[in-house]
Amino acid sequence: MRRNKGPSRLDLDEAAGNGLVDRRLFLTGVAAGAAAGGVFSEPASADELSVEPWMKTPGAPFVGYGQPSRFEDKVARVWASAPNAPGTGAARTPLHLLNGAITPNGLHFERSHNGVPDIDPSLHRLLIHGLVKRPLVFTLDALSRYPMESRTAFIECGGNGGQLYQKDPAQLNLQALHGLLSCAEWTGVKLSILLEEAGVDPAAKWILAEGADAAGMSRSAPLAKAMDDALVALYQNGERLRPSNGYPMRLLLPGFEGNLQVKWLRRIKLTEAPTMTKDETSKYTMLMPDGKSLQFVFPIEAKSVITQPSPGLMMKEPGLYSISGLAWSGYGKVVKVEVSADGGKSWGLAELQQPALLMALTRFRMAWRWSGGPAVLQSRVTDETGYVQPTRAELIANRGGKAIYHFNGVTSWAVSESGEVKHVYA
Amino acid sequence: MRRNKGPSRLDLDEAAGNGLVDRRLFLTGVAAGAAAGGVFSEPASADELSVEPWMKTPGAPFVGYGQPSRFEDKVARVWASAPNAPGTGAARTPLHLLNGAITPNGLHFERSHNGVPDIDPSLHRLLIHGLVKRPLVFTLDALSRYPMESRTAFIECGGNGGQLYQKDPAQLNLQALHGLLSCAEWTGVKLSILLEEAGVDPAAKWILAEGADAAGMSRSAPLAKAMDDALVALYQNGERLRPSNGYPMRLLLPGFEGNLQVKWLRRIKLTEAPTMTKDETSKYTMLMPDGKSLQFVFPIEAKSVITQPSPGLMMKEPGLYSISGLAWSGYGKVVKVEVSADGGKSWGLAELQQPALLMALTRFRMAWRWSGGPAVLQSRVTDETGYVQPTRAELIANRGGKAIYHFNGVTSWAVSESGEVKHVYA
Repeated sequence: MRRNKGPSRLDLDEAAGNGLVDRRLFLTGVAAGAAAGGVFSEPASADELSVEPWMKTPGAPFVGYGQPSRFEDKVARVWASAPNAPGTGAARTPLHLLNGAITPNGLHFERSHNGVPDIDPSLHRLLIHGLVKRPLVFTLDALSRYPMESRTAFIECGGNGGQLYQKDPAQLNLQALHGLLSCAEWTGVKLSILLEEAGVDPAAKWILAEGADAAGMSRSAPLAKAMDDALVALYQNGERLRPSNGYPMRLLLPGFEGNLQVKWLRRIKLTEAPTMTKDETSKYTMLMPDGKSLQFVFPIEAKSVITQPSPGLMMKEPGLYSISGLAWSGYGKVVKVEVSADGGKSWGLAELQQPALLMALTRFRMAWRWSGGPAVLQSRVTDETGYVQPTRAELIANRGGKAIYHFNGVTSWAVSESGEVKHVYA
Repeated sequence: MRRNKGPSRLDLDEAAGNGLVDRRLFLTGVAAGAAAGGVFSEPASADELSVEPWMKTPGAPFVGYGQPSRFEDKVARVWASAPNAPGTGAARTPLHLLNGAITPNGLHFERSHNGVPDIDPSLHRLLIHGLVKRPLVFTLDALSRYPMESRTAFIECGGNGGQLYQKDPAQLNLQALHGLLSCAEWTGVKLSILLEEAGVDPAAKWILAEGADAAGMSRSAPLAKAMDDALVALYQNGERLRPSNGYPMRLLLPGFEGNLQVKWLRRIKLTEAPTMTKDETSKYTMLMPDGKSLQFVFPIEAKSVITQPSPGLMMKEPGLYSISGLAWSGYGKVVKVEVSADGGKSWGLAELQQPALLMALTRFRMAWRWSGGPAVLQSRVTDETGYVQPTRAELIANRGGKAIYHFNGVTSWAVSESGEVKHVYA
């Protein structure tokens, strides 16, 4: 392929230091055409393409349930599990290979505590009990008669990005660092409808949610959240939930850490106080510098990360690129994402994919003319509460270096002169 | 299961005839609790659920790319193909088994004219030529450097619903009648950027788009549309396009009939006039009552259909139900959907899932108290241009009974006293 250095001699609208430019550059055709042959395209030498082999033979017939191309077999979750417990661990979404805001169901991240149960939906029941007037049991058929609602929501594991608390930057790619994050359209029945049907005792202030897996994974959450926007989700991107995401039903508490979105939901118990389950005492608490732990830190703080480029993806040559990434907040909508190419010295405003939905992943994009010199790429998000994503240093100053959960500091990717992208602290 | 007739003796807010009611009925808890034990739930006899077998053994370990539960194997596309041509035909989406607005990639409908080509993305090229200043060739790598955008858009085959032009109502289910319809989040590069880079000759008024399948499927479209909102789509619900949906790239012309969304896109040629390809002369024209055909009828007219209940899904017992369906328009946003339970005599306003996006499927929902008597369920949509979906009789009066394409009249489901749901004309 002919190398084309791109429009480096043109008058570019600088949006911030080290080459961040206005994306209209791509749109004018001026920058594009000027150097003859376009920015990244090749001039067509003949007026026709050759007829490729796949045009000379009939293609594959229909199938009931489709799969990705065989050329995409590296677009897969990677996982780590505990010794002798192949179902205890987490499988991470390959965010560096995806685009848009939706995560396809086959690649939604998974955190499981004792494997994925093989649940017969006709036998599964949801029990609502505890501080209610009438304990109730719901079959899947019964739930299907209630009005449903759909919402697009991210789920992020509370432990996502935990390696960034470490003293030195882990030499891992985006999937390994931040891949416990996904986003889907969830459809189900509002939990408040079911709780009101059971009749909430005024003494109830918390709920216990328990899963039907072999770990009996269970967590406590405030009743106020359950009555506000909690969903008993039955569908994920249009089809029934995937087994690894809670089939046939899971709790969705939009914006809360992933562990609260209890999969394989079998019961909701209304209680006066948190139940103090093993999952909220032995794990998912936030160790502070003084050695004490914060418990019940539920919402995911605003966070963003650049997905392209990111470690493992090489920059081929100097010229125009599109920087892309994801931003989200458990406290509300994403209203602003800024991108820096000089390690935070200057910031340019990224474009946000619309609509930017409440507690959903929001895709951002920014044009960048890479000079071929060293650069440090960063993004930082502002949510609708006005909260600005902190630098890593600011976060560590507050939480110390022994924390594991809720890392939401800025992530930095260094681009070297060879085009290699590396995780750094900056 | 104990049968519960629901709150039939309660004072219900009638929204329209034959039992259409306000969905707040589900929300108050009054209707629910009154009859003891709730509307569809069972009172819990003990305070705990039994421990099911899948809780007593570790679950399945992690996998790279997930699949649906084995209990969902009937949620699949069904297809018909031409004799001795297993790749020529169409596979339909099981809309009656889905919910929300997104179609999962494995179930997106497929219309193929000579099978699904097995394209090596590193060898695939997109040529832009014809009335341009500089013919250009793009690799997939080159396209990845351009700014992308994501949009949720429906695709509907122009032939979807064609059976409803027939004299008698086909006794088929929703999938067979209207299953050539799906919706996804598409991400790619705006075609206008690439065309401007090639430099559009002022004489150009049309484009030819050609696919790299063995049928060389090709269609003509107005250049104005190509410059407006056309996308060279590379991603579908976050991941690379599925082979059956055009991997590695397809044309997306939002709101236009499906055949224009050329899959396996290999070239765009700018022309003065339509190319008159085999696919736009032998097919995809609209036969009118006078024997002449309308050619180049591109946008999909506003249409809606009730997905639950629909033929094949049984109503079990009188009581409250949630009616749900899909509405869409190739001319703009869906602004209103009305539902009738008495064959169009009276109409109640359905709730629209928000956000209702431009040229995307919009889910609507309406509460219904089925008395146990006969009913005819219908929906009709109004789009932002003010256009109202016509009755079937109005459509036939205009187009005659020999048309095949662009059926968008009202679809009617009759519910019998036994709870059976049947396709009827009403």
